Amino acid sequence: MKLYVSDIELTQYRNFSNIHLELTPGLSIISGNNGEGKTNLLESLYLISIGKSFRARNDFELIRHRSSDQVNKFVPQTTIHGVTKFDDEKNNIVIALPFDNNQSKEIKLNGIHISASQLVGKTPTVLFTAHDMDIVLGSPGKRRQFLDILISQVNQEYLIKLQKYQQILTQRNSLLKAIRDHQSSEDELIYWNTELIELGKFIINKREDIIKLIHREVQKIHSEFSPTEKLSFQYIPSVSIENFEETLNSTLRQQIVMGITDIGPHRDNVLIHINEISAYSFSSRGQAKNIVLSLRLSEAKIIQSTINVQPILLLDDILSELDEFRRKKIIEKMHVYNQSIVTTPEPDLIDATYANNIIHLKNGEIIKQ
Amino acid sequence: MKLYVSDIELTQYRNFSNIHLELTPGLSIISGNNGEGKTNLLESLYLISIGKSFRARNDFELIRHRSSDQVNKFVPQTTIHGVTKFDDEKNNIVIALPFDNNQSKEIKLNGIHISASQLVGKTPTVLFTAHDMDIVLGSPGKRRQFLDILISQVNQEYLIKLQKYQQILTQRNSLLKAIRDHQSSEDELIYWNTELIELGKFIINKREDIIKLIHREVQKIHSEFSPTEKLSFQYIPSVSIENFEETLNSTLRQQIVMGITDIGPHRDNVLIHINEISAYSFSSRGQAKNIVLSLRLSEAKIIQSTINVQPILLLDDILSELDEFRRKKIIEKMHVYNQSIVTTPEPDLIDATYANNIIHLKNGEIIKQ
Repeated sequence: MKLYVSDIELTQYRNFSNIHLELTPGLSIISGNNGEGKTNLLESLYLISIGKSFRARNDFELIRHRSSDQVNKFVPQTTIHGVTKFDDEKNNIVIALPFDNNQSKEIKLNGIHISASQLVGKTPTVLFTAHDMDIVLGSPGKRRQFLDILISQVNQEYLIKLQKYQQILTQRNSLLKAIRDHQSSEDELIYWNTELIELGKFIINKREDIIKLIHREVQKIHSEFSPTEKLSFQYIPSVSIENFEETLNSTLRQQIVMGITDIGPHRDNVLIHINEISAYSFSSRGQAKNIVLSLRLSEAKIIQSTINVQPILLLDDILSELDEFRRKKIIEKMHVYNQSIVTTPEPDLIDATYANNIIHLKNGEIIKQ
Repeated sequence: MKLYVSDIELTQYRNFSNIHLELTPGLSIISGNNGEGKTNLLESLYLISIGKSFRARNDFELIRHRSSDQVNKFVPQTTIHGVTKFDDEKNNIVIALPFDNNQSKEIKLNGIHISASQLVGKTPTVLFTAHDMDIVLGSPGKRRQFLDILISQVNQEYLIKLQKYQQILTQRNSLLKAIRDHQSSEDELIYWNTELIELGKFIINKREDIIKLIHREVQKIHSEFSPTEKLSFQYIPSVSIENFEETLNSTLRQQIVMGITDIGPHRDNVLIHINEISAYSFSSRGQAKNIVLSLRLSEAKIIQSTINVQPILLLDDILSELDEFRRKKIIEKMHVYNQSIVTTPEPDLIDATYANNIIHLKNGEIIKQ
């Protein structure tokens, strides 16, 4: 079953006044000079997938900027309208941004108002952006976040339990401080410990499972791009399931002094190695980009095998910083996905025979080739 | 007067067992696939300039990794040896890393032991790396840091006063908390206020001066790369020199409640705009990269006009993410510097007629073309 975006129309969105783009399945290339809106267009495709931007700090950044002489003139509402096709099924997704800050955006699926969370899952996508390099080069929190988002996509219970865990953790830390300041007694910890351990064990367990899946998929994919690199993923829980309760009790003094629960899944790490050398400390930007791409493609594979739909790939400037061998491999690989959309400032680097759609952006207009 | 690096020899450094590279003035290209050590080589050139790495968290990351079967075998000491030439003057700079963690690295200039701070200034360089994007896309602290490092390079008094200001600020904040907790009286603030205001005014003043210089230089340079973009820099001090004392006094209640000095140069910002639109919120990665490059070239210009030596440019993967027009402009511009060294995974993108040295890295070896 093939899912793809067939149309996107943008009105008063980012740098675009009004554009309409038709797409077919297969590989689409969005090219254009710096600042012509390549990432803006990709962002709009992500918006119709999950109802929010991957980079705007608030929805108002999505509204097209007006110069001072335009402020009092009429402008249409900022709207993102996408059409997706999935066998015989066709979905119209419209996101309309309000004119003033007091209102919130409207999302409609086939004419019916829905919430952003109801939109999620209608058009599964996997996104790569430059920020993803943090999964390799950033703090452990970035790697935990990657795991958590991936597990949540295939297991809705996980997200609910993870949020619950965070609440319990906050409560328990407040209580630790109160015990330290002699305002509460240690007996009160019993309830919070039980909850923390139960939820924590669930989270560790699911993370162990997904790491096994990722490890298996990612090695295969990565070896295609980098035949001499053996990539490995190792989950390092701050405490094992078996020892969670015991360690929580045995380090209680220290926790009270610090007022912090310093063990549990919120302190987990994932170690990424290339040929047994730490990718965090020693990989170059190009190597890190390659690792993240392999991870994102594993993510697509895992989602596909769970929900039986191949996600749409949205890849923002994946080719830059990579060498010619890896660039060619990526394009060959993108070509076989139902739909993959790649931005690049350098379309000449791509073998055009693989591309079903080549879109060039200039001065806020689309030039389709 | 022309300064340049003529030789660099690396022993047991990063991914290199032993390489020796000769360079001539003009543009040098370091090419190679991802993970072949392009950035490592550039890092070594920066090391002989200021005695520390721009990315290693500690010096031991610089030591070549040994596989498990090599651990007990003899290996030479990790050494970076650079030769710089400046008219008739020739400098030999050797940095040797210790074998074990308890010792620190040795720096020798023409055979004589010196400290890292004595090395600074012998070989002025301007470096561009991918992390520099934070100057545009990151928090205000990143922009303050850029200003502070630039001013310190041309004014040694500035760094000393800035460090003093930080100490005074920490002391004053402790005192504010003590006043809040009724452990100190407000009288004690008088001394700290006087110091804070005097140092703060000095810092604001120097930042105002440098912003004027940057603004003038950067507009000229940026318009060459991006003729349709008008780049502007605006210094936004959290408080003006004239109102510093008055505002510090009038907001004292609030400061005591929070236990924090919330005005002063440590809260300054710099706004960067392209055609009156915030670069922080709206610039693409390509645009941000272009802005930072313009900034770094302005930095080189400002240093040159102050110390009368043109710095060496070290540019790590500056070309990726940029479009063809901008790439060509950059190479044309690099060509006229005394010495500029550019890494790239894609040497075909560079017009080879501009390059005086083309170095290709493969399997830890140098292939000079």
